[in-house]
Amino acid sequence: MALADTRFSNRRRKLATAMAEERLDDFLVTHLIHVRYLSGFSGSNGAVLLSKDQSAAISTDGRYATQIAEEVPDIDAVITSAITKELLQKLEGPRRVGVESDFVSIEQFKQLEKQCPDEVTLVPISGMIEKIRLVKDNVEIERLTGVAELASQALEDMIAAGEIAAGRTERQVAADLEYRMRLLGAERPSFDTIVASGPNGAKPHHGADDRELQKGDLVTIDYGAHLRGFNSDMTRTVAIGPVDDFAREIYDLVLKAQEAGVRAATPGTSLSDVDEACREIIREAGYDEYFVHSTGHGIGLDVHEAPAAAKTGQGSLEAGMTLTIEPGIYIPGKLGVRIEDTLVITDGKPKNLSTPTKQLREL
Amino acid sequence: MALADTRFSNRRRKLATAMAEERLDDFLVTHLIHVRYLSGFSGSNGAVLLSKDQSAAISTDGRYATQIAEEVPDIDAVITSAITKELLQKLEGPRRVGVESDFVSIEQFKQLEKQCPDEVTLVPISGMIEKIRLVKDNVEIERLTGVAELASQALEDMIAAGEIAAGRTERQVAADLEYRMRLLGAERPSFDTIVASGPNGAKPHHGADDRELQKGDLVTIDYGAHLRGFNSDMTRTVAIGPVDDFAREIYDLVLKAQEAGVRAATPGTSLSDVDEACREIIREAGYDEYFVHSTGHGIGLDVHEAPAAAKTGQGSLEAGMTLTIEPGIYIPGKLGVRIEDTLVITDGKPKNLSTPTKQLREL
Repeated sequence: MALADTRFSNRRRKLATAMAEERLDDFLVTHLIHVRYLSGFSGSNGAVLLSKDQSAAISTDGRYATQIAEEVPDIDAVITSAITKELLQKLEGPRRVGVESDFVSIEQFKQLEKQCPDEVTLVPISGMIEKIRLVKDNVEIERLTGVAELASQALEDMIAAGEIAAGRTERQVAADLEYRMRLLGAERPSFDTIVASGPNGAKPHHGADDRELQKGDLVTIDYGAHLRGFNSDMTRTVAIGPVDDFAREIYDLVLKAQEAGVRAATPGTSLSDVDEACREIIREAGYDEYFVHSTGHGIGLDVHEAPAAAKTGQGSLEAGMTLTIEPGIYIPGKLGVRIEDTLVITDGKPKNLSTPTKQLREL
Repeated sequence: MALADTRFSNRRRKLATAMAEERLDDFLVTHLIHVRYLSGFSGSNGAVLLSKDQSAAISTDGRYATQIAEEVPDIDAVITSAITKELLQKLEGPRRVGVESDFVSIEQFKQLEKQCPDEVTLVPISGMIEKIRLVKDNVEIERLTGVAELASQALEDMIAAGEIAAGRTERQVAADLEYRMRLLGAERPSFDTIVASGPNGAKPHHGADDRELQKGDLVTIDYGAHLRGFNSDMTRTVAIGPVDDFAREIYDLVLKAQEAGVRAATPGTSLSDVDEACREIIREAGYDEYFVHSTGHGIGLDVHEAPAAAKTGQGSLEAGMTLTIEPGIYIPGKLGVRIEDTLVITDGKPKNLSTPTKQLREL
């Protein structure tokens, strides 16, 4: 418990520092992912009020009275059906109170304004907590590593059991993968599983349908698990038996680009340069027009979060950030290849959370 | 396709009628569930602009160019990376344009205001489309029936296969149920599956953990499937072998209350009376304090939507609404029972989408 307390109070300390720059007296946090990030509370209704002196209040409704006491031992909880109102009405005197402008709707904002005592001013603030989330702490990295291991294990077990094979449908493969992740402890997939075989592989956002895998297919499998708030994300493209020379050529090219992206993912490298490291290899081979998306994204409490490794990517990598490296080539009507690792940026080589081999497997 | 066209244009016609009451010239719809409801487009980025003359424009980005043409044959799509900007900039002269105040964040609203041509005024509007969604059309009822049948089938198949039995964990049962729904065509569970056995049954929002089912347990299974935008929701409580007299008494009481709720679910009945129909039976038996939630909710594109059958429920039922009836009794440390059907309200008896028997099964 002492460990947990430190983790959450550390995050609140960082937020209090950021608040000072905007001259905020308090911050009312209502986005549930952020409530969990700052307090550990995982219920479906709750809010945190953090003050500039780092004192915090938290509120939820009666359904979660026991749970919040267990999950948040270091903050007294207000149990009420009017969570934001009770938190705001504790405030006295002139206060500038930040609210999350990316998540509070116009309607909610109207309600919050009605709930404020006189002299309290709500200040819409964008991206302040997201900025703190950019660099992961040790517990976050541990959780992300764990959920990525679980997902990697599910794929390895499936391959060992011969469950990715000619005659099986994309839907069956997706269902088996999700089932194995569930039995290994995942709460749910982190997003809808993609199993894109043969020509379906050319659609980057194909789901998983009734097409049967066939000998000679490339099959792109893009999936992840969600556990205790954290997400994994990985893509492997496998072959059903031997594939033709063209498929092999595209596979090798994407792998070469992906490995270049991984090598580029070091502290200080600009995010557009990481993207370019992948893209230039594909461009030089003449397939630029078939790499139709950006190179990667951060992952943590959200599957897609900052930073973005893209042509238009802003800023540079720092140790403790996460980043996927996932170039792809999609030839309409024919095939597609995507290979994706999730990295944690370190001062040396990045730590790769996606352990299954990237050598083309013929299943 | 002709059928689909009518369905979506009918919904847009209803919205145009509601817009007239607020003197809106146009409505910019950005909540993705509503974009799908009004157009059929199921992508992850899109917006619809509906004008008072019922003409509509739709926009998405390049990833979905093919998909939107297939899904929305009756509206020309604007393919762009600046979807709301392009739609708003088509407007000329003084216009009052509604935006969804329950879903547009403060930050988005600021961006939308910048994108507006002169003389265009954005008007925050709450709940207008939700009100139209209250009464389901034939296609919606067909989809809801289909997804409920799929989920019912998965449970029946599991029971027939002996997969709910002493020695299996809650997590295994949940994983099997989700797996079977997936193979029957579900895209995903509509919410995190609840398998609450023995004393865990006393927690209404228990998930599914590593507890093994034991002889004499009651097991509450609350789950649903999601398919093509629509959701199912059903709860059955089953017994692992014979249960003691107390468990049987609580089961029979909840069943009696649930059946009274179903009988009360007729057009013209107030939503608080539907709640009271269940609650009075439980109260008269002396268990009022253990029925800690409301009786039910509508279901459709959202798992929980209007109407709400609760003590404080507003308004009355109409034919074409959906409603769950799900009373429960939760005895801390001992057991819990919840039984839930999803109903479609009709002019006669409600249509029950949840087909598995409600007689206590000893497995």
